[in-house]
Amino acid sequence: MRKSAFAYGLLATAAFSAPVWANDDVAKLSADPNNWAQQSGDYAGTRYSALDQINTENVGQLKVAWTFSTGVLRGHEGGPLVIGDTMYLHSAFPNIVFALNLADEQKIIWKYTPKQDPSVIPVMCCDTVNRGVQYAEGKIFLHQADTALVALDAKTGKELWKVIDGDPKKGETGTGAPLVTKDKVIIGISGAEFGVRCHLTAYDINSGKKVWRAYSMGPDSDILVDPEKTLSLGKPVGKDSSLKTWNGDQWKIGGGSTWGYMAFDPELNLIYYGTGNPSTWNPAQRAGPDGKPIDQKWSMTMFARDVDTGVAKWAYQMTPFDEWDYDGINEPILAELDFDGTKRKTATHFDRNGFGYTWDRATGELLVAEKYDLATNWASGIDMDKSSKDYGRPIRVAKYSTFKDGKGADVNTKGICPAALGSKDQQPASYSKLTGLFYVPTNHVCMDYEPFKVSYTAGQPYVGATLSMFPGPDEPKRMGNFIAWDGTKGKIVWSKPEQFSVWSGALTTAGGVAFYGTLEGYFKAVDQKDGKELFKFKTPSGIIGNAMTYSHGGKQYVGIFSGVGGWAGIGLAAGLTNPTDGLGAVGGYAGLSEYTNLGGSLTVFALP
Amino acid sequence: MRKSAFAYGLLATAAFSAPVWANDDVAKLSADPNNWAQQSGDYAGTRYSALDQINTENVGQLKVAWTFSTGVLRGHEGGPLVIGDTMYLHSAFPNIVFALNLADEQKIIWKYTPKQDPSVIPVMCCDTVNRGVQYAEGKIFLHQADTALVALDAKTGKELWKVIDGDPKKGETGTGAPLVTKDKVIIGISGAEFGVRCHLTAYDINSGKKVWRAYSMGPDSDILVDPEKTLSLGKPVGKDSSLKTWNGDQWKIGGGSTWGYMAFDPELNLIYYGTGNPSTWNPAQRAGPDGKPIDQKWSMTMFARDVDTGVAKWAYQMTPFDEWDYDGINEPILAELDFDGTKRKTATHFDRNGFGYTWDRATGELLVAEKYDLATNWASGIDMDKSSKDYGRPIRVAKYSTFKDGKGADVNTKGICPAALGSKDQQPASYSKLTGLFYVPTNHVCMDYEPFKVSYTAGQPYVGATLSMFPGPDEPKRMGNFIAWDGTKGKIVWSKPEQFSVWSGALTTAGGVAFYGTLEGYFKAVDQKDGKELFKFKTPSGIIGNAMTYSHGGKQYVGIFSGVGGWAGIGLAAGLTNPTDGLGAVGGYAGLSEYTNLGGSLTVFALP
Ligand SMILES: O=C(O)c1cc(C(=O)O)c2c(n1)C(=O)C(=O)c1cc(C(=O)O)[nH]c1-2
Ligand SMILES: O=C(O)c1cc(C(=O)O)c2c(n1)C(=O)C(=O)c1cc(C(=O)O)[nH]c1-2
Repeated sequence: MRKSAFAYGLLATAAFSAPVWANDDVAKLSADPNNWAQQSGDYAGTRYSALDQINTENVGQLKVAWTFSTGVLRGHEGGPLVIGDTMYLHSAFPNIVFALNLADEQKIIWKYTPKQDPSVIPVMCCDTVNRGVQYAEGKIFLHQADTALVALDAKTGKELWKVIDGDPKKGETGTGAPLVTKDKVIIGISGAEFGVRCHLTAYDINSGKKVWRAYSMGPDSDILVDPEKTLSLGKPVGKDSSLKTWNGDQWKIGGGSTWGYMAFDPELNLIYYGTGNPSTWNPAQRAGPDGKPIDQKWSMTMFARDVDTGVAKWAYQMTPFDEWDYDGINEPILAELDFDGTKRKTATHFDRNGFGYTWDRATGELLVAEKYDLATNWASGIDMDKSSKDYGRPIRVAKYSTFKDGKGADVNTKGICPAALGSKDQQPASYSKLTGLFYVPTNHVCMDYEPFKVSYTAGQPYVGATLSMFPGPDEPKRMGNFIAWDGTKGKIVWSKPEQFSVWSGALTTAGGVAFYGTLEGYFKAVDQKDGKELFKFKTPSGIIGNAMTYSHGGKQYVGIFSGVGGWAGIGLAAGLTNPTDGLGAVGGYAGLSEYTNLGGSLTVFALP
Repeated sequence: MRKSAFAYGLLATAAFSAPVWANDDVAKLSADPNNWAQQSGDYAGTRYSALDQINTENVGQLKVAWTFSTGVLRGHEGGPLVIGDTMYLHSAFPNIVFALNLADEQKIIWKYTPKQDPSVIPVMCCDTVNRGVQYAEGKIFLHQADTALVALDAKTGKELWKVIDGDPKKGETGTGAPLVTKDKVIIGISGAEFGVRCHLTAYDINSGKKVWRAYSMGPDSDILVDPEKTLSLGKPVGKDSSLKTWNGDQWKIGGGSTWGYMAFDPELNLIYYGTGNPSTWNPAQRAGPDGKPIDQKWSMTMFARDVDTGVAKWAYQMTPFDEWDYDGINEPILAELDFDGTKRKTATHFDRNGFGYTWDRATGELLVAEKYDLATNWASGIDMDKSSKDYGRPIRVAKYSTFKDGKGADVNTKGICPAALGSKDQQPASYSKLTGLFYVPTNHVCMDYEPFKVSYTAGQPYVGATLSMFPGPDEPKRMGNFIAWDGTKGKIVWSKPEQFSVWSGALTTAGGVAFYGTLEGYFKAVDQKDGKELFKFKTPSGIIGNAMTYSHGGKQYVGIFSGVGGWAGIGLAAGLTNPTDGLGAVGGYAGLSEYTNLGGSLTVFALP
């Protein structure tokens, strides 16, 4: 591991001074399938469990083992961790954290209630969600809405240290789950709807000291790229790779938020994560000095960064010059996939823009880029011709441009697929080691998009577009599908329609089952082979949390948060009814109110 | 039925003009055990169901069939109604009402969200609870926190009419379930902690027109007693029975709230209900002109009233000159009990004061009055000697008086049992037709009580005592018991200890099972025979709702609200931590926070 830290040069000394390798603890705990030791189950982000007590034969008999209300309404994302006898779980704002004793009927061991100024709520674009806590070396790490990162004593819930990552008065908020690697806890930040220049930051797990920060845009020294060594599509990015792609100072309010789930490859010593949309949503305001589209790097980018230094190994921009809010933050999932008989270390990512990408994760070479929702119409494909000057770039369809050669403002472009919330949003997919397929909770939603001029004021919305959303074209009408995806071929293997978008994270297990929740509140189990529904149960509220599994006392459990909200559920969560409110999501998901109400709680299932 | 309306004289003409006998509809629906057509299951208030698919043999296999979050935190009392394919349920403030389609996966048919001024919240003494809606003739009746009584179209949820029963600015609030009899919907009012002179009021179910109102105290014309015909312990109450028992004008701020469950005997044409404590809780301020205790009639009274006229047939005061806040509002339960070989029409009532009473419900004759928590120490018994001048009155133990011959103010009287919240509070008991026994969720809590002088300001708390509460003397330490009670002998048949007070309403069924919930959140099934625990399940939040059962599509279901709160859970519900806050309940129930959090939801169980 040390070697690679070296190889990337810059700041490598930081690696030397690291006294402990936190990842050993986390990696060891994650390797034990009785635990669910990370939000994504493992560093690779597979959300796959080797447990197989619950399998396709018996999953139909699942019953609810116990339930737990967090006492907080609005959207509950992420899920609990289980380490041995203890379960750790969190709530939506105000981000209460609980430790429950699994060996004593889930008695509350401790409860941590942050004091947070509720004035952060109105600057959270997409509900007061939080994607979960992480654990390492006896500490629980929580990234609060108000951007504070706190380390708690996992035994007592006592605050060990607390650092402030950003400023909600400028629209900076925290919703993402930290990632703990080695001796660092790494967090992103939200605020691309407020013109925040977003970043990823590593803190020392023992002291909370800031180790490095990588902005999504700006000078090379801010974005931690090495002009010569950081690659994009096989070539060095060169000097000022970001600055050159922005008009004047616009990068200073450039967005590129970093609130998705991350992954880590301990051997390559690289962390993987995506960056979000450039601010504003009105592309005309972001045109280059020549009035033409300009890339706005490194918004909408998958990054691989050295964990010790933060320096980027490679970067790939999914949606240069975004015109649709196709945030690139969706999680990367690390696997070993077979390409023409060769196993390659890959990262696979289902982007908001409707394309499923697979890269060689060591080099960033683009291996696959195919639509995982065939309704996707803003681009006909990704240019895979290595000799093309547009290699790796989307092939746009002019009709669905909201820029329209600079004349897009105040024009309502209709029928764009996917909608701004993408063919998939925050809901993480799962990679099954059993089938070698990805199981992806998806949206099937399209939109009308009308940009308008907006001016920047710190802490005020800097959006600049009016949206309305509606179900995609597939019949019978629906807003989501749960799909199985072949990451090598870039093909949908099967697709199971869902009335609403599947806003819940998937879980796959060695029992052959894939689990997920629906916005109406159903927890579902399907066969990994063919998507056949084997079990469903109506939980108290709509589900936007992630399915997880653990084993305790020899018994396998499957758990999931309910608590409707998130962007899709913002109408219910924030009590909005005007169809274009909630950045356009309210109208599209209005039907949800016939099915469910708010309420954060955990439902845990087991066999009888 | 008409006859008895006649017999009671006063206002009898009202009965003649009644066009429909709503009770026929309700009675018919309640007689079908597939429904749960009233909050108490039937007019008698038995909370007994003839369903027996779930029985003592198989109840251990119960599994959660479905769940439903109301989207509202804080205490959820009462429970759903089921009429055919539709379930009606309500939430704590703001008292949202839902109709769910049981034939279509509990889809929400309609949702009624009252607009209520949240300024009512601080004048609700004991959490923002509501004890449930009632149904009759295609209408749903809701008594809102702000005292509005609304009639909704059961098919559409549209408001048909709305009347205002009281004024929250004076501390008047609504928490009780209405009772619908014939063409009237009858509601009580809360506010005895605010010096409200409380009352019971009948409204016409079709128009909302007020038909009669019976105050708990005041002139005979206000309290609807007939000095000659209204009986108490077999004797006419005489002229000014209430006025004579108050010092001067104090009756005008006299309390006597009416928020408990009521019962109705269609043959006798009588409704039964209890009145609450006299205001203030400082007895010294309520002494008679001679400085001696004075009864403060008709606070703390079980009333039988003619439903057409409101005129009282009989009244029995459980706790004359209250010194402990032993509100007499607990539900009456109507049964036919065997006394020396004779079946008598009885009303049984477990009073806050620790005594279980059985009356002949036609005459008010006192048949039984025995302690149902033997820890009760403020009185050694009830004088049952018909020749005694104290016949029917409690025999007080001087040591536990908080009046202390007028010197009780600012003296802390210790170790009084039960505590102010009684050996039982709002949680209704059940009468099993199978065993002929009562199943009673009880408190086992004692208190220290220190009265202090308080002056009356409309809408301000008018309490005048500082309390602390703690577990009763029984070992091992506990705060509650679930008991079986012989209503004829006045004896505990068995008693099952519970760590916290059992604040949830009981249900008994022909399957031999008794169901109830616990404040930690367990839903439990026990054998009616011996109290043996047959099943338990941890619901999302602590339970203060009432168990109910219904059958749909040939399958029996059992349902219960969770959502911790009420007086016992006020610390959690209102976020209080000072032990003497929440009228003394916060300290006693502080341990609850180790078990559960807020969150209103319904959990419905069935066999696999
Ligand atoms: O740009 C941002 O800073 C930002 C932040 C967040 C967030 O932190 O939840 C979301 C988004 N954008 C976003 O575009 C989006 O679709 C979204 C969905 C959700 C959600 O939790 O359902 N959050 C966010
Ligand atoms: O005097 C009143 O007006 C009044 C009202 C209420 C209520 O409406 O909930 C309670 C009480 N008193 C009361 O004494 C009491 O113990 C109580 C418990 C509860 C509850 O819901 O847990 N409410 C009330």
